Amino acid sequence: MKKVGIVMGSASDLPVVEKAFSVLDEYGVPFEVHVYSAHRTPEEAICFAKNAEENGFGVLISAAGKAAHLGGVLAANTVLPVIGLPVKSSELDGMDALLSTVQMPPGVPVATVAINGAQNAALLAVQILSLSEQELKEKLHAAKVRNREKVLAADKEVSAKYNK
Amino acid sequence: MKKVGIVMGSASDLPVVEKAFSVLDEYGVPFEVHVYSAHRTPEEAICFAKNAEENGFGVLISAAGKAAHLGGVLAANTVLPVIGLPVKSSELDGMDALLSTVQMPPGVPVATVAINGAQNAALLAVQILSLSEQELKEKLHAAKVRNREKVLAADKEVSAKYNK
Amino acid sequence: MKKVGIVMGSASDLPVVEKAFSVLDEYGVPFEVHVYSAHRTPEEAICFAKNAEENGFGVLISAAGKAAHLGGVLAANTVLPVIGLPVKSSELDGMDALLSTVQMPPGVPVATVAINGAQNAALLAVQILSLSEQELKEKLHAAKVRNREKVLAADKEVSAKYNK
Amino acid sequence: MKKVGIVMGSASDLPVVEKAFSVLDEYGVPFEVHVYSAHRTPEEAICFAKNAEENGFGVLISAAGKAAHLGGVLAANTVLPVIGLPVKSSELDGMDALLSTVQMPPGVPVATVAINGAQNAALLAVQILSLSEQELKEKLHAAKVRNREKVLAADKEVSAKYNK
Amino acid sequence: MKKVGIVMGSASDLPVVEKAFSVLDEYGVPFEVHVYSAHRTPEEAICFAKNAEENGFGVLISAAGKAAHLGGVLAANTVLPVIGLPVKSSELDGMDALLSTVQMPPGVPVATVAINGAQNAALLAVQILSLSEQELKEKLHAAKVRNREKVLAADKEVSAKYNK
Amino acid sequence: MKKVGIVMGSASDLPVVEKAFSVLDEYGVPFEVHVYSAHRTPEEAICFAKNAEENGFGVLISAAGKAAHLGGVLAANTVLPVIGLPVKSSELDGMDALLSTVQMPPGVPVATVAINGAQNAALLAVQILSLSEQELKEKLHAAKVRNREKVLAADKEVSAKYNK
Amino acid sequence: MKKVGIVMGSASDLPVVEKAFSVLDEYGVPFEVHVYSAHRTPEEAICFAKNAEENGFGVLISAAGKAAHLGGVLAANTVLPVIGLPVKSSELDGMDALLSTVQMPPGVPVATVAINGAQNAALLAVQILSLSEQELKEKLHAAKVRNREKVLAADKEVSAKYNK
Amino acid sequence: MKKVGIVMGSASDLPVVEKAFSVLDEYGVPFEVHVYSAHRTPEEAICFAKNAEENGFGVLISAAGKAAHLGGVLAANTVLPVIGLPVKSSELDGMDALLSTVQMPPGVPVATVAINGAQNAALLAVQILSLSEQELKEKLHAAKVRNREKVLAADKEVSAKYNK
Repeated sequence: MKKVGIVMGSASDLPVVEKAFSVLDEYGVPFEVHVYSAHRTPEEAICFAKNAEENGFGVLISAAGKAAHLGGVLAANTVLPVIGLPVKSSELDGMDALLSTVQMPPGVPVATVAINGAQNAALLAVQILSLSEQELKEKLHAAKVRNREKVLAADKEVSAKYNK
Repeated sequence: MKKVGIVMGSASDLPVVEKAFSVLDEYGVPFEVHVYSAHRTPEEAICFAKNAEENGFGVLISAAGKAAHLGGVLAANTVLPVIGLPVKSSELDGMDALLSTVQMPPGVPVATVAINGAQNAALLAVQILSLSEQELKEKLHAAKVRNREKVLAADKEVSAKYNK
Repeated sequence: MKKVGIVMGSASDLPVVEKAFSVLDEYGVPFEVHVYSAHRTPEEAICFAKNAEENGFGVLISAAGKAAHLGGVLAANTVLPVIGLPVKSSELDGMDALLSTVQMPPGVPVATVAINGAQNAALLAVQILSLSEQELKEKLHAAKVRNREKVLAADKEVSAKYNK
Repeated sequence: MKKVGIVMGSASDLPVVEKAFSVLDEYGVPFEVHVYSAHRTPEEAICFAKNAEENGFGVLISAAGKAAHLGGVLAANTVLPVIGLPVKSSELDGMDALLSTVQMPPGVPVATVAINGAQNAALLAVQILSLSEQELKEKLHAAKVRNREKVLAADKEVSAKYNK
Repeated sequence: MKKVGIVMGSASDLPVVEKAFSVLDEYGVPFEVHVYSAHRTPEEAICFAKNAEENGFGVLISAAGKAAHLGGVLAANTVLPVIGLPVKSSELDGMDALLSTVQMPPGVPVATVAINGAQNAALLAVQILSLSEQELKEKLHAAKVRNREKVLAADKEVSAKYNK
Repeated sequence: MKKVGIVMGSASDLPVVEKAFSVLDEYGVPFEVHVYSAHRTPEEAICFAKNAEENGFGVLISAAGKAAHLGGVLAANTVLPVIGLPVKSSELDGMDALLSTVQMPPGVPVATVAINGAQNAALLAVQILSLSEQELKEKLHAAKVRNREKVLAADKEVSAKYNK
Repeated sequence: MKKVGIVMGSASDLPVVEKAFSVLDEYGVPFEVHVYSAHRTPEEAICFAKNAEENGFGVLISAAGKAAHLGGVLAANTVLPVIGLPVKSSELDGMDALLSTVQMPPGVPVATVAINGAQNAALLAVQILSLSEQELKEKLHAAKVRNREKVLAADKEVSAKYNK
Repeated sequence: MKKVGIVMGSASDLPVVEKAFSVLDEYGVPFEVHVYSAHRTPEEAICFAKNAEENGFGVLISAAGKAAHLGGVLAANTVLPVIGLPVKSSELDGMDALLSTVQMPPGVPVATVAINGAQNAALLAVQILSLSEQELKEKLHAAKVRNREKVLAADKEVSAKYNK
């Protein structure tokens, strides 16, 4: 199975990004994590993106805050789909990271998920890989069932408490 | 090759969405277009999403403006990756459509591209399909080269005009 | 008397939504609470909305955060008035939920109240039901009087303290 | 049948508000239109709201732009449900009118619809009145069917043109 | 000397508004404080504004949060200058109160100060009254000198610490 | 009678500001207009503000767009009330001018009116001057009556057209 | 004298950027213009930045719209000061470009000027170069005088027209 | 070597600004710190700016929050490059300070860095001075190497922990 490459712009993004790891583990999707800054280690970021295809990656996830250029740097240097995860920093509630990630110019898309939406970044990667991995498709269907059940259980509990 | 399913919430979104068709045609990717509103034809939208996988679709693109729920409706009913294209309407510069599309809750990602970014929505679909279509990969690489050449040609022209 | 149906997108919205229960209790309006996610249990949400009319509901309240599609899902599947309560999440101060709820396209209104405005969501439901329940009208008039008195009492206290 | 009272803050709002009239006409709902400014004719606005109930109104719609206080003025002086229609002016894309209308304090809800969403304001009024007018319920159901058919017709046309 | 009338929409605004009292005390300007809600006690608010002129007030200050209509209500009912103090509530960082206060339509100005800017609201009131109170003018000039001296003292301290 | 001093940051603001002139003329309030930029002619702006009091001015109006510092510069150099008129430029819908004008720090208030709200800037100036000019008070009361009548005339026209 | 390197992300930015050329010409500052996209020609952009210092550049100006990463790419690859010029595109009024340019993480500053502020970008470059070019300092001082005179001439004209 | 002049609008900005001091110390760049308010000590601020050039300064940094006019005041009175550091205050997340600083009108640029981006303000000052100080250039290059190494060390740590 192709791997998911997760690049975060700073080690300080780890608490947000870690939630993606458990999702990928849950789906049995191999992944590799890196800290490469678009601005402080541009060469490593570019090099990682350029070789990602032949190094066995199928999808990349970039996590970055503020003027979040990492998704753009990766997408500029690979034809693999790049998922952008805007990370909220202490100012502007993550709106800067969201706009810097999603408003990409024609020709270089970054598939953006919600601010701090690490679980969805991982899940989107799984969905993409599942196109050629039937086993992931099944797990995704099973997860949809489980998610539904969790909500229904919550509904049951709330119903029991409030609806007489 | 798997098809791309493009669903727009209203026929009035067509001028924005059409740019996606030419990108897909350019890559030789089969696609099917529909007008299904999340709110006026929820059943058709859901039905389309539910059957998309077995109807030969690999990726879905949803285009919608204002309180843009279409991406969420599709994503709720399929495990295929869903690309969200926020369409700018006459108010709020598309910020409503962007936030309604990208800020999805955990479990149901929508891969959001720029406001009115139809070309990138299509290109992202191609990138996703290219994971199992070597031929698309090559076309994507070729396009990267062509895009580079276009910019360099523009640079040449600008350089010739302004740099003595 | 017709019931108020309250649907929240996630059990985590309960602390915000609970304030609506006490308002409805105060007015003696019967209500039923559910946790149905627009994205994780779309069928239950739709089913609830579709049958709401014949199940004795007169108004629905939807409470959801982020890309808050729940109000739209309910409104798409019923002709009952749907009140949308945008819930503030940890990012963007609730602006995403507000815009996702209020900016509905023509044909499918959602009656939106303030971010986290659970009391007003309930009160609006009471006002709507009061059109055919004279007793609620009277209670609403009485509440207006009480609210006025509370403000006047506060004014008295403040006046006593600061105005010599 | 109870009437819908439509109050606009300025005659210049008429082009936006007129769309509400045709919706109400379509449903056979009687309505009365007024130009009462919250700031230039506060007494008339208040008086209208105070007497609305006994003058046979069932719902009020307020349309106003900028610092849109009209909805609040009406809601402060009646227990009838008040629908707020934020009108876009030449600055700030209607965000000022939206926030001034929707962010009402506890105790005085204004049921807010989209910026310039006059059709939905009218439709919401119809839905509210339909609670005690079976005939409106049927028309609303019929409209849902018609809306669905319009979308499906658009889908047919688009499908015929783009899907081979 | 004419009095300053301070009206707050809710007693919960007191911690913000109190800063205005000390400024007025400092300048020896008589003031009267009231809690009158634009929505819960509209009559008292209107009545206060209508009689303010003959009750010896020269300027009014209105403090309110969220959809802050209080400034508009006062200004609609008096020709005295009305100062609007937008109060930050728990959502939207006070932007709703700011826009609801400042974006008044032609004919009914509200002199708006910064979000939570109670000191400036009071100071502006003093400046307005000083037009016919020479003694206040002198105090204002003296305060400008004192403010300057405070900054220069801070500069001295900072200079001593950091500039060798 | 004291004069109103109107300072605009650029002659290009004239089309917006001119509306203030006619209001002042209507009230018979003497005024003096200047183009002084906070950044290109700081000395003239400061000098004008410093001498405004002894040159017979009672109120100043500053009109500026973008990073609108003019109100602050005037207010820093006079104890007269300064009215800030944020002018919309071609970007950001005037939000930059609004925030630059209204968010003044403690000690130096600028009485801010709506974006492009030149009429209200002038009217606020009249209200302030009216504290010591009984004749202006009467004109303000008369204007309130006229404004009311204009709205009522509009109401009559609209009522005649739409209410049968 | 060191040259100014102007890089724009797309030839479509030329109408905005050209204003910078005339400023530099006016000051007799040599410059070189290029079209290098951060995403379509990352290598050329990086290469240009890396060699800028030894190719005789003293300052770089980057002009880009939407998710404007160009300033960051240049700044990541040079120690020369990089001036960021956010270009307004058809959506979001340039706020996306502004935040993508200005909110750079620690270690890699981009000196950001106003949206579409090409003249100021050029002027800032001149100011920076003037630190070691006395002749530019003098021209800058002369320009300050000329700017002042232009404003004073405008003031004279306006004064003559409106002040009797 | 020319000095960096750091002016903050209030001593309360010190915790944010202090980070700039250590950067300048690290580079061995002499600096002088002052507390001069654009509004409370305009004369000192202007005087400082006017004499900065002949007092041996090469670059100025202005740090201010809310309606942050300090950068503009300095830039209006010197031809030295002025770096604007928007300081986040308790409201609006620093957006007011950012827009007040960056949106300067043509002719008077302020080189704006990120909200609370004191390190980058200092670093930009160093970059500007380095044009005529070869030694600073070398330190900047060395810092780029060190920054790269820090990121690579973080990458190593993260890789070791998560990549098997």
